[in-house]
This record gives sequence, structure tokens and C-alpha cells, in this order.
Amino acid sequence: MRETLEIRTDHKYVEVAERIETLIEKKVLKVGDKLLSVRALSKEQGISLSTAFQAYYFLESKGLIEARPQSGYYVKFSREYTRDLPKTSEPFDDATPVSVDDMINSVYVDLNAEKILNFSTGAPAVELLPTAKLNKAVMHVLRDSKTSCLHYEHIQGNVLLRKQIARQAFNWGGAPSEDDIIVTAGTVEALSLCVKAITKPGDAIAIESPTYFAIFQVMESHGLKVVEIPTNPLTGIDLDYLEKAIPRFDIKACLFVNNFNNPLGSCMPDENKKRLVDMLAKKEIPLIEDDIYGELYFGKTRPKTCKTYDKKGLVLHCASFSKSLAPGYRIGWTIPGRFKEKILRLKRMHTVSTNTLTQAAVANFLSNGRFELHLRHLRKALHTQSLRYIQAVSDLFPEDACVTRPQGGFTLWIEMNAKINAFKLHKRALKHNIGIAPGQIFSSQGKFENCFRISYGQPWSSRIEQGLSTLGKLMKDYK
Amino acid sequence: MRETLEIRTDHKYVEVAERIETLIEKKVLKVGDKLLSVRALSKEQGISLSTAFQAYYFLESKGLIEARPQSGYYVKFSREYTRDLPKTSEPFDDATPVSVDDMINSVYVDLNAEKILNFSTGAPAVELLPTAKLNKAVMHVLRDSKTSCLHYEHIQGNVLLRKQIARQAFNWGGAPSEDDIIVTAGTVEALSLCVKAITKPGDAIAIESPTYFAIFQVMESHGLKVVEIPTNPLTGIDLDYLEKAIPRFDIKACLFVNNFNNPLGSCMPDENKKRLVDMLAKKEIPLIEDDIYGELYFGKTRPKTCKTYDKKGLVLHCASFSKSLAPGYRIGWTIPGRFKEKILRLKRMHTVSTNTLTQAAVANFLSNGRFELHLRHLRKALHTQSLRYIQAVSDLFPEDACVTRPQGGFTLWIEMNAKINAFKLHKRALKHNIGIAPGQIFSSQGKFENCFRISYGQPWSSRIEQGLSTLGKLMKDYK
Repeated sequence: MRETLEIRTDHKYVEVAERIETLIEKKVLKVGDKLLSVRALSKEQGISLSTAFQAYYFLESKGLIEARPQSGYYVKFSREYTRDLPKTSEPFDDATPVSVDDMINSVYVDLNAEKILNFSTGAPAVELLPTAKLNKAVMHVLRDSKTSCLHYEHIQGNVLLRKQIARQAFNWGGAPSEDDIIVTAGTVEALSLCVKAITKPGDAIAIESPTYFAIFQVMESHGLKVVEIPTNPLTGIDLDYLEKAIPRFDIKACLFVNNFNNPLGSCMPDENKKRLVDMLAKKEIPLIEDDIYGELYFGKTRPKTCKTYDKKGLVLHCASFSKSLAPGYRIGWTIPGRFKEKILRLKRMHTVSTNTLTQAAVANFLSNGRFELHLRHLRKALHTQSLRYIQAVSDLFPEDACVTRPQGGFTLWIEMNAKINAFKLHKRALKHNIGIAPGQIFSSQGKFENCFRISYGQPWSSRIEQGLSTLGKLMKDYK
Repeated sequence: MRETLEIRTDHKYVEVAERIETLIEKKVLKVGDKLLSVRALSKEQGISLSTAFQAYYFLESKGLIEARPQSGYYVKFSREYTRDLPKTSEPFDDATPVSVDDMINSVYVDLNAEKILNFSTGAPAVELLPTAKLNKAVMHVLRDSKTSCLHYEHIQGNVLLRKQIARQAFNWGGAPSEDDIIVTAGTVEALSLCVKAITKPGDAIAIESPTYFAIFQVMESHGLKVVEIPTNPLTGIDLDYLEKAIPRFDIKACLFVNNFNNPLGSCMPDENKKRLVDMLAKKEIPLIEDDIYGELYFGKTRPKTCKTYDKKGLVLHCASFSKSLAPGYRIGWTIPGRFKEKILRLKRMHTVSTNTLTQAAVANFLSNGRFELHLRHLRKALHTQSLRYIQAVSDLFPEDACVTRPQGGFTLWIEMNAKINAFKLHKRALKHNIGIAPGQIFSSQGKFENCFRISYGQPWSSRIEQGLSTLGKLMKDYK
């Protein structure tokens, strides 16, 4: 078993680096400013030379400062100096039956081929996950289980796991009991069961635009019409538009990824969440909330969820450990409020109980208090990677390309010159063994033709730099 | 980790016991006949005293002979002396929308409560499963996997596992390649995806009667009407009835458990399977075949499947390891013929990929050639248990109760006097901490009011004898 690389975040150098970062953000230190020498920093802060060096190295890895040979360290990166944000998506103003394109198959056909540098995979790199400790958890539960985890688990899920999920909910202001939670085979099963529970074929359901294509596929499989709500890359869906769209399209339900929407990385401000919940509660419209990325925040605190403000049991909260801990374990859950009994019945009809062994292993891992520590490392790593990737995009992509500034999660959304077709770009990139997710698959109407999504789940490397450089060239040479 | 109890089936005593069993079956030895003394048997067969004793002990544990104190061994059991078979189910002659009763919830609410002697659980006892070797397989794959099995598996499933499933199919006369197989989260997911792929809401689908209630629930969730086909406790569905029912009810698809139907334990003769496949092929009607119990046969050879005779790709074969190896691992599959692409799409919409770790563990276990040996032990144990339970039912239940003679699987179906309501019996039994599955939940119309199902998955014990005795008393005292 391999140990994962553990970045100690409680070290002195991180603290020093963070204070310098604040100065850069507040523009006390500006791009191009020379920083103190390592020796001077060490003296000024009363820290060792090695700690001072580590602080600079850390800031450099984040793309915030750069070392110039024989000269010293300089401020390099400022949010203000990167590319523009993509625009808020345009309303399409229609409720359309979903027909998911064969494009998705084309993009995901060779997902696991090793030769491909895959920017389209939606999961953090395995080296960012606590493999050794999860393996130990598996062995521990195998040893302790009277049945070696071969028995059928309760349909609602392992009770210890549900207790841990309930405890975790405290972080977003929730206070569910274990009895309010239903464990599922990942978030997609949770979403599918929730959609099935609250809609009937032909109903219109509101979603973000752009949105993760798996969500369209869930809609398609249930015969629903979708209404794509314009979505801002920073603040999420346009609530005023939604309010008018509800009566206009007779919207029966909503499904939103409010925290770090995939692909935009937007985060709906908590006050908007409250307004959204109140607006829907008045009309008795249920809201499915996909919070799969909620724990992967880069700010000081975890954003709240819509469930936090739910008084009527109308919010069906869905999430999983697939993006934060163990993709292949297939453990998700829903906290479906007043729809619990219906969803339990549906689960019995579709997959019955969820995997006994991996449920027990995750419960064991969480009950040892290891999840919080792991999440701190993961957030730090993803934040650093996001900055590094954004910097590279700014350096390597054509000047008119815009890029998002995700506040969490692990996806970047690139808006290119209108003449570039992202699906063609995807085909060309694939010839260079590079995988991207073209914008067309993030809309039911094939919108976002000149956009694409890349994931920064993989730690920075020269192979990635080379890949982004090739992508930039393909865009520049596009005809 | 615990080692499982391994019954060596290649021992001399088993061979001797089997020859005696044949004599009993052929009525050369009749009930009440005295057997040779242990010493005489030892001499006659040229075996040791201990082998002779073991042979008698083995036959005794099967309920075939009994030891009378100071007298010797006597033939006890003969199939002819047990109860009558239940009748072939009556046709209901209608296509009805499914509405699954709250009864199911009532029966399965406390499935895992330890104090309950649960005859309603549909799985073999954990002590019949190769726990230690499966645990080793888990550890092996964790050690060997570059990602510790944390990555998302291919949506179609682990390729090594699919190869093993393809190899296993040889036993029923199939020759699929790994590319024809889709791995699912247990058989219920496979059935649900297949039903979704070949029907639309409102369609009529033919099923057995009685049938496993989870199958009704799948139908209900897809908005289908079911046509219950009369089913013989030995030979399965009435093909003549089905042939007439197809045009009459405009049947669009069939779903049958041909091998050891749950609850009847019936096995459709292979020539009937061929006739069924040919009949449906002419009309281009797809057949979903649930072969989850197929490996648990008590006869000399594995029964064929309908897929064996499928030339047009119209048979969607479904099965799993849940009843034969590892219930909690949630690994099933489908070999869906011409519907493969459609089912892959649906799987992506509903649960995406299946658990990476348990897929790899099962693949490892199978590729070590351990499955066949385990199955031989399991079949032997279940066969012995079936005979023991049938004997006890004959001894302890009222004289007018009929019982099935399963040829595989692990369920018995009891038909009681018409005045006894099985759901009431279930309620009364529960007060004595005994769980049974009342007949009403095996029909969409609440038929089979005077029937119930018990599982003989648990090895014989005095607790089980006591439980069956209590059940018998409740039936005798029923008012």
C-alpha cells in the first residue's frame, strides 16, 4: 500500500505565505513588485531560512510569485491580471424535450485509455486521495464484520455511515438525523431517484445553463422537459429570470448545483439560496440540490446549502463521496425531506441496497475523524492547482479566450473566440491524445459551441503544461 | 478472518452415501427398512468403520435415514411420503396496472433485527459463503491496484470480471464475449434497466405467478401492466396459456425466472425453454430472463437458459453473484443481446459505473478457479437443507398443507388450508419473532392468500426446528 503525499497545512511557512498572499490580494503588493530576499524575510519574521524559502516556494507553486534568476522573487499573479470571465449564459426561452447527443459517447468513449491526457475526467487525481487509510478502513471493517460485509445492507444504508453524514451536515448548517438520510450508489442514483419521485413524464424542470451533461441524461431518461436558466460564472442562476420562468413554463421542479456548479465553478451566495428556497416554498415547488462539490471550497468557510434554509421539507439534498474521497466506492446519499418514503420505495425497485463493504469502510474512515484533515489537504491542493491552471491558460491560450474563476470544485470553463467550434477542437485535440469536454454537451440545445471544460483535478506537471500549450496552439491555428 | 466450513465432496463416504440414496429413491430401500449395521456396511463395501459411520451420518443429516437407539439405522424419508405439491396457479385473465401493497414494507421492515428468526430472507446463510477467500481477494486487489480501486470503473464493468462471467456462461451453453456483458449493481438493477430499455409506460408484460415481489416493483416503477401466467411448481409457466395470452393482452415483453423461480423453485425443462424462445422470436417479443438462481441446481447438470437458444438477440439474460457468492457486494450483470447500446446509455443515466473494489475482488476470486469448488459445496449444503426443511414441514405442519419440491435455489412455497390468511399468520408469527413472506406479496392482485414462502438458506438447527414447530402450531390453532 502506498502512503499519500500529505501537505502539512499547520506549518509556519503556510501561515507566512498566506499573509503575503493577502497583501497581494489587497494590492499592497502589486504585480512586478520585488519581494524581500529569503534572508530578509527570515529576519523580519523571526523564522528560519528554510521556512522562509518554503513560504516563497509555496507561493510560487500557486503561481502567485516567480523567481527571477540572480535577482529574487517577484509578484507574478493577480486575479485582476488574468482573463475576463465568460458572460452569463443567454436565456434560450423555451422548455425543450431533452435529446442527449451522441457527442457524449464520442467524448467519453476512451475515458480510461492511459495514453490520453484527460482534461475531461471529473474527479480529483488518485494521489490526492487517502488511499492507504482507506485501505486500512476496508481491512478493519472486513475483520470486524461478523459477515465479512457479505450480508445485504439495510436499504436505507449503513446506520453508522448515516450518523457520520448527519454529523458532517453540521458544517453547512444542517441538522438532519440519520433517519432522514438515504444512502445511494453515488450522486447520480440519488438525483435519478429524486427526479423520479417528484416529477412525471412531460413535466418541465429548471436547471442551470451550462450544466453537467449527466443531469440532462437523468432528465431524458425520465421523459422531462428542461428549462435552462441563465447562470452567472460567479453567483449562479439568475433568480429574477427563474421567478418569471416558473409560471411561464409551468415549472414543476428545479435541479441546481448551487455550490461550485459543474462546469462553471460558480457559487450562489447564501442570501440568494435563502431567497430561492423561500420563492419555491411559496409555490410548493420541490428543489433538488446537487451538493457534490460543496466540501471542496477554497474560501474560509463552507458555503451553506439550500437545505440549510428548508423549512417545508421541499429541498431534496443530494451529495456523495465520489469527488471528495473515493470515486470508485460509489457511495452517495440524499436527504429528501418530505419525499423520504417515496424515495425508499423507489430505491427498493431500482437497486435495493447499496454496497455493504464500501459503506462500512467510509463509515469507519469518517468515524476516525480522518475526513476533515483529508479535506483540508484536498482543498489546499485543488486551490493551488486551480491558480496554476488559470495562470497557464492566461499564458498559453489565445488572448480573446475567457476563463472562469472557480471558488471550489475542480473544473474550468473556457469561452473561446466565437469562430472556434469546441467539438471540432475536441476531435483535433484527441489526435494529440488530449481529452477535453466540448461545450455543446453542457446544453440540451447544443449551445456553448465555442466553450469547453477542463478539469484541474490532476496536480501540475510538465505533461499538463505541454498539453495546455498544445491546446492553445490548436486554438490559435484554428481555421 | 474466519475460515468457512468446507465439506469435502470427493470423499469416499459421500460416494457410498449417494449410492444408498439412489437405492432409496428407486424404492429398492423403502421407508422403514432397516439398513446394514455400520460394521456390516464396512465389510460389504471394503471401507473403514469410520467411513461407514460418516456415510450414515451424512444421510441422517439429509433427513433420509434415522438412527433408532439400540436398534440401528432405518430409512426415514422418501419423496413419495412428503406432502402434495401445490397446484398450478390459476389464471387471473387480465392485464392489470401494478400497485404494490404496503404489505411488503410490513414484512421487510425489520429484516436485520437479530432476535427475529427470519425465514423471509432471500439469501444463503453467510456461513455457506467463502468469506475468508473473498477477504483475501479484496486485500489482493487493493494491493495490486494502482489506485487502490478508488478510480471510476468503466461503465460497462471491469473487463476481467466480464471475461470470467463469459467463461462461466459456458456452463449453460452460452458463448458470449466480454463485450456482450454489462455489469450492474445486482440483478435488480439489471432487470430495471432491461425493462426500461424494451417497454414504455402502459405496455403489458408477462410474468410468472406467483412471482418475486421485487419484480412487481420494477414493473410498477416503469408504469407497466402485468399479465400473470399460470405457473406449475415443477415445470414453470404454462406455454400454451402464454401463447394465447400474447395477442389477447397485446403482450410486449416477458420477464421469467425459468430456473428455480422464486418462490416456487420450479425449473422449466430445457425443451420448453427452446419452445418459448422460438415462440417469442416469431413475434419479435423480447424476453428478460432472470437467471439469478441458475447455478444453485440440485440435479446432475446445470439447467440451460433461454439465452442458450437465442438466435436473434431478443433474450436479455440477467443474473448476479448475490445468491451464490456475495450478497452485499452488489455485483450483477446482463447479457442483453441487441439492446446493449441502449442499456449502456440507461446505465450512464441511472448509476453510472458499478463499485470498483467489489468488481475487482469477484474477478480475482473467479480467476483463481475458486468459484466452481465453492458452488459445489453450496449446492450440496442447500440440497441437504431443502430435504431437511421439507421433512420438518411434513412432520410439523397441518396435514392439509402442501409444499413444493424445489430443484434448486433456496425457497419453499407452502399452500395451506384455504381458510388460513397468510398475512394474518405472518403478523402472528412476528409476535413469536418468526418472519415469513406471506403469499399475497407474490401477486399483483393479492392472490395466494393461503400461501407463504420460507427460505431454507440457513443451515438446520434446533432454533429453526423450534421456529417451524411454532409455525405449525399457529397454523393448527388458526381461527
